[in-house]
Formats: sequence, structure tokens, C-alpha cells
Amino acid sequence: MSFFTMRWSDDGVLLLDQRALPDQAPVLCLRNAEEVARAIEDMVVRGAPAIGVTAAMGVAIELANANDADVPAALERAVKRLAATRPTAVNLTWALERVQSELSQALRAGTSPSQVREQAKQLAQQMHDEDVQVCQAIGDAGGPLLPDAARVLTHCNAGALATAGYGTALGVIRSAARDGRLKHVLASETRPFLQGARLTAWELQQDAIPVQLVTDSMCGALMRQGEIDAVVVGADRIAANGDVANKIGTYSLAVLAERHGIPFYVAAPLSTVDLRTPNGDSIPIEQRSSDEVVKLRGQRIAPEGVQARHPAFDVTPAELITAIITEKGVARAPFEQALAAQFER
Amino acid sequence: MSFFTMRWSDDGVLLLDQRALPDQAPVLCLRNAEEVARAIEDMVVRGAPAIGVTAAMGVAIELANANDADVPAALERAVKRLAATRPTAVNLTWALERVQSELSQALRAGTSPSQVREQAKQLAQQMHDEDVQVCQAIGDAGGPLLPDAARVLTHCNAGALATAGYGTALGVIRSAARDGRLKHVLASETRPFLQGARLTAWELQQDAIPVQLVTDSMCGALMRQGEIDAVVVGADRIAANGDVANKIGTYSLAVLAERHGIPFYVAAPLSTVDLRTPNGDSIPIEQRSSDEVVKLRGQRIAPEGVQARHPAFDVTPAELITAIITEKGVARAPFEQALAAQFER
Repeated sequence: MSFFTMRWSDDGVLLLDQRALPDQAPVLCLRNAEEVARAIEDMVVRGAPAIGVTAAMGVAIELANANDADVPAALERAVKRLAATRPTAVNLTWALERVQSELSQALRAGTSPSQVREQAKQLAQQMHDEDVQVCQAIGDAGGPLLPDAARVLTHCNAGALATAGYGTALGVIRSAARDGRLKHVLASETRPFLQGARLTAWELQQDAIPVQLVTDSMCGALMRQGEIDAVVVGADRIAANGDVANKIGTYSLAVLAERHGIPFYVAAPLSTVDLRTPNGDSIPIEQRSSDEVVKLRGQRIAPEGVQARHPAFDVTPAELITAIITEKGVARAPFEQALAAQFER
Repeated sequence: MSFFTMRWSDDGVLLLDQRALPDQAPVLCLRNAEEVARAIEDMVVRGAPAIGVTAAMGVAIELANANDADVPAALERAVKRLAATRPTAVNLTWALERVQSELSQALRAGTSPSQVREQAKQLAQQMHDEDVQVCQAIGDAGGPLLPDAARVLTHCNAGALATAGYGTALGVIRSAARDGRLKHVLASETRPFLQGARLTAWELQQDAIPVQLVTDSMCGALMRQGEIDAVVVGADRIAANGDVANKIGTYSLAVLAERHGIPFYVAAPLSTVDLRTPNGDSIPIEQRSSDEVVKLRGQRIAPEGVQARHPAFDVTPAELITAIITEKGVARAPFEQALAAQFER
């Protein structure tokens, strides 16, 4: 892959600034947990798996800066700050709980501060590498679900840019493309932040995977015309019953897919499945600034004074989902049992 | 109303340049049929009824410029050029056929060229004034369909800016607001051209009608949350069986409305109903430039080299439509009979 989403360096967490894509691809070097937290809040990096890995690196850089005596407090401080950045993606909580649990245990066991710093760094790197492997496993589990010469619609960006690499929904697409079974991808542009137009189109272009851009509003008409064989999206949180929170607009696509008899797949690591969340109604939906709707890359597109709504995610009920693809395989309804079983494998 | 969409002057056809809204509201003075045709092609003016009236004025200005001997040829030339501007909205054909029929008849009857010029101008003005009256009748027929404290979703701009004044879908909304029965309008921004964000939000703000802007992708989730009581849209062409061509994205909203038991109304003058088009499959759908999707007000939002689809309209089958509101009243299924009956009243 010709780019990276996040990378560890001893100087700081290196993040591709996704806000500048596709025109530019600057890399930021974030030197403490506060800077990493702001980068997550400001969408320098986004995508549930990616912000989980980035947060783990954010803890590690905070510990790298801390005096020996300050290491336990730095751990608490970094975890608390990073956990408060964005509410919907459960991978953030999952990653930070894992980091906090392993490092707290080490501290309680009398591990030296310098060893804990090293452990934090290695753990973040391990979570990065695991995420790539998990995405490849998701891709290989999901790729065979797509028909020959598949024309696949995806929404937002659930690609390498949303993970440590390879992607979830785009992992499925990459595996199908590698196996010669992809005709092309239809990428919905994904207003308001344009992750489809700016990120998915760019990422697929980098990999020479054929892609056509569509507005979010075109998907229903294209389904009706028989131009879409499958929909594959990522997820920010999957409830125990299989309800899925994902980028705003996902629910509409699921309703449209059902009406046209088109399979609707969700691709995500098990770290996105939150068994503590019983159903979609319990998933907190982040409300972002109206400015992100009324301004586009700094330019105003609606009159001064007009209010805009901006729920960043919506919930798709399990009944509209054909299958959930994780690194453990393909889960189908009843999802409650199928997902629980995947955790036991 | 504090603005006009199009207006006749003896110097030329005055058109509000809708491409510049909401930041600016410049008025162009178009001095011949070719200039008017280009303005229609370039979306200076858009909206089915508006382009019909504008085209009638375009013929009148071409005749105003013509030498006596050239009047018959100028009529043919202007009608032919203007009819070729945009294929989907039938009001354009309707308006030009009416103009051509009345003026050709006058020429055949030996009316003098100067009288024919005057007749063209008066006919265009009459069609303008009739369009305003028709919109008011549509509004008054449709307003009572909305519930008290209605929260109404509309798509694109079917307002004063899409007609000679008052609007079709926004006419229904204006009448409901006047009668104290409107809580607020949700305006979908309507990518790619942003008629909702730029035009509908601006137009409603001018009239102090409460409006919230949403992206096209939010509508399904808002319906699911019970935040939308009715959908009202305009139309570019209504087939004899009640299938409706309208701005791309309309079909998706109709599917979503049906799933949530939300009434879906289409508001349009009878001049939008084309009894010669049996059903939606026969309606030509304009394919516009990919550039209008990948560039936003001159700024590129997708990588260089990425192709975008751009069907400008879609077709909503009659089965998804609760009622079609015209100046003659409210038509319900079976639409074939109900629409035909309206022509006979």
C-alpha cells in the first residue's frame, strides 16, 4: 500500500491528515495524548478501527513523555481524555480498555516505569498489526460472498484509511478484486464530510480498483435500474442483537437494498461488536456541528443563519442486514447467537 | 415576495442567476433566444414550470429582435433551439408548443409581424401570471393535506425559484404556513447542485418560514425517528399512469416514506402531466456532466481522474405516491383516471 493511516515513531504518533485528501496527503506528528485526542475529534483520522489503534498510540506517546513517577497518572489521564473524543465507535472504548487493563496490571505487578513505557509502545504496535491481519481475514471471509463481475456499492470509507490497513468493507472489495470477481465499486460521496468522494475514491484509485462516484441521492435509482449487485459497508458499533450504527445514510441504503432484493453486508472486526449494548436504541449517536453541513471545505453553501442537523451516524436494524462479516467468518440471523458464538471461537 | 425568478423587459429576459445564490442574487438580462437557451442549459434558471415560462419569454425576445420578414423563421428557430435545452421537464415542450401554436395561427391568419411580436410578449406574460395563479391554487389544494404542526420534508427546490412565483411543493408549504399549520420544513440539500441548501433554504428564509437543512443521507434516519410528518416534492414530468420524474433522490425518499407510513405528495401544475408519456419508463432522463458532481462551486472534491455518474432525475413509480396535487385538486390512485379527469374539468 502506497500510504499509511497511522504509524508509530518515537517522536510522536504519525497521522495522515485525511481532512486534506484528496488534494494533499500531509502527515502530522502528534506529540502527546491531547494532540492525538484533538486529531480524533477534528477528523484528522476517522473510522472505528483506526481511531482505536490511534488512541492506543496516543496513550503510548503520553507515557513516553512522562517522568517515572508520573507514569500511572499519565496512563489514567491519557485514557480518560482519549475515551471522551467520540461516543459512537466502540472500538475506541475497546482499545483503551485493553491498553488500560494490560498496563495497569503491569504497574500493579511492579513492572518498572521504563518497561511500562516500552510495553505501551509494543502493545500499540501489536494492535496496529493485528488490525491489519483482522481486516485481511474479514476481506477473505467476505470476498467470496460477492457474485462474479460484482458491482458493489459502499458508503463512507471503511477502507485502509479507516483501519490500520486493508480495510473492512474495502477489505472485502480488495479480496474480491484480487480474486478477479469485481467489476467496479460505486462509492457514495457521503455528505457532509465526503469520505466517499475524498477518501474511498482516492484509496481505490491508489490501488487501481475501478470506482465510480455517485451522490448519496443516486443510490436508490441505481438499485432500481439493476446496477448494484451488493452493498458492503463498515460499522462503528454493532449491538448484541445485530443492529448496526454506521455513518449517516447507511440506514437509507439498507432500506433501499431490501426493497430491491440486494444483499446488504456489514464488514467489521469483532472489536466493533459490543455485547454490552443490547440493541441499536442503546447506541449513543454523535451530533456534530451544523457548520460541517453548511460549509464545505471552508466555503458556505447555505444562507447565513440557516440551521442544519448533523447526526453523524444512524442505526440499521438487524432485520435489514444480510450478513455481518468479521475476522471469524460470516454471521447471519439470528445475529444474537451468531455473534456470541464468534466470540467463543 | 422580495425577489423574482424571471421577468420580461423590452431590453431582454431578466433572470435571477440562481447559480450564485445564496451568497449573491445577480440578475442577468438575456437579449436573444440563444442566450436564454444557454441560461436554461447552464442552470441559471431551473425548475420545470420556470423553464417553461422562461422559454416563452425567450421566443418573445427573439421575435422582438427580428425584422418583419424574419418573424416566421425567428419563431421556428427560437422554438427549436429552446426545446433542445433540457429533455426531462415536459413543461418546456408544453410552453413552446403553446407559443408556437398560437403564433403560427396568427401568422397564418395574416396578423402583421409587429402584432405577432406584441402577441408573443403578451402570451409570455400571460403564461407567467397564470403560473403564479396555478401555484397558488396548488398550494391551497395541498395545504389542507398537511397535519397540524406539520414537519414537512421537501427535496430540491420546487418553490418560487422553480416557477413564476409561490412554488408547487413550496406553494403547499406556504399555504400551510399561512394557515398556521406548519411547524417547520426540513430541506434536503440535494446534491450535486445543492438546490435545497442554496435555493430552498434561502427562499424560505426570505419568507420567514422555519427551515432546517439536512443532507440527503439523513432523511431515512429522521423518518425512522418520527421527525417527518409528510414529504412534498415537485415534478419535472408526470406520466399518464402517475409515475413521476423529479430531481435525483426523489425515488429514495418515496421508498423511505412508504416504509415509515409517511404520506408522499407530489405537487405540480397540470402542464407537468404528460398524457402522451404512458409511464415512467418512457421519460427521458437527462445525464449531466460528471464535473457537476466532482467539483463543488469550482472546487474539486474528488481525486483527479475519478469518474462520477450524474443522472439529474429519477422516476418514482405511482404506487409510492399518496397523492398528486395540481391546480385542479388532489388526484389519488388510480392516477390514470384521476389525472385524465382533471384535464376535463
